[in-house]
Amino acid sequence: MGASYSMKGVPLVQTAQIMDQNAVEPPQHNQSLRALAHLGPGHAVSQQIFEMIGHSRFFSDFTRSDIELLARGMQIYRAEVGQALIREGEVDDYMLLIIEGQVEIVKRDRRDMQQPMTRVGPGATLGEMSMIDGEPRFATCTAVVPTTFAALSRDGMVKLILEEPSLGAKILIKLVTLLSARLRQTSHNLLHYMEQR
Amino acid sequence: MGASYSMKGVPLVQTAQIMDQNAVEPPQHNQSLRALAHLGPGHAVSQQIFEMIGHSRFFSDFTRSDIELLARGMQIYRAEVGQALIREGEVDDYMLLIIEGQVEIVKRDRRDMQQPMTRVGPGATLGEMSMIDGEPRFATCTAVVPTTFAALSRDGMVKLILEEPSLGAKILIKLVTLLSARLRQTSHNLLHYMEQR
Repeated sequence: MGASYSMKGVPLVQTAQIMDQNAVEPPQHNQSLRALAHLGPGHAVSQQIFEMIGHSRFFSDFTRSDIELLARGMQIYRAEVGQALIREGEVDDYMLLIIEGQVEIVKRDRRDMQQPMTRVGPGATLGEMSMIDGEPRFATCTAVVPTTFAALSRDGMVKLILEEPSLGAKILIKLVTLLSARLRQTSHNLLHYMEQR
Repeated sequence: MGASYSMKGVPLVQTAQIMDQNAVEPPQHNQSLRALAHLGPGHAVSQQIFEMIGHSRFFSDFTRSDIELLARGMQIYRAEVGQALIREGEVDDYMLLIIEGQVEIVKRDRRDMQQPMTRVGPGATLGEMSMIDGEPRFATCTAVVPTTFAALSRDGMVKLILEEPSLGAKILIKLVTLLSARLRQTSHNLLHYMEQR
């Protein structure tokens, strides 16, 4: 327990193997989160998370006890206007759930200009790809109003999968469903652009 | 057991709930598969599946016993040249693993012409999106040489998750990783086209 190495940049699949073998609890190393106000562990706001599930496709069929277990592995942060929750290019390992506020997603174009892509609000999840694969962040997510969110790190996710396998499966099925929906949408958009050429 | 209703078109997340509650084993309803030669259940070729894991990113860290458990839930089919393994627009619920052969992926464009997208060979997995979300197939997959493949239906996947939770989690982590990689690649391609306008 409490080993001093980091699994930053190690994708979900290897983290699961390493943690399964060694049962260590590695420290958190998340640059963007360290710059934000840390409001405490998730269980303090599990009631709030539970109440907002109506807004969230991600948690819509989670029970109260599911949310409580999940909230134990989450940390709550607050970003002020203009602060980044996630920064394009950084190597970080958490996904996040917006509890309150609004976030703009921007991506640098070829001329290094920040191009706004979309805005999301309470109930939206962000950052799943890097949580899963350990690759650098694809885009930057910035608070457009003061924003409270819950962060779940890769280690937190792995711990859940190992210690609460049935809740772990539920979350993994949700992630698979979410990624599949985004992949379908993105593929449709890509075809649209390809056909216009 | 052996209830007579179909869960075709019911996404993975609901199928898991229904099967968990009722423990039924619904029948298979897959149009394209019915047109192909059925070579038998997967466990007969688990040795072959195990031997080809070197080619497959999907199964690269699965143990021999993982593969045997997984193969029990799979059915093996053979498609002759020109036969479709998956047809765009159909509602089907299986994903598949190519054991031997080569498959071309084509998609109808706005003028209803079949546009070739890519070719894949042994070790590749196809059809995960519809297995997960129950939406119609995104593209058609056709054998360009005689092709043997293993099919895993949504019910087979749910059975695995419920009966072998640790292998189920391993497969779900693989799926999440695969979808995340495809989403990253597709998003990059989309940006490339958007920036050229």
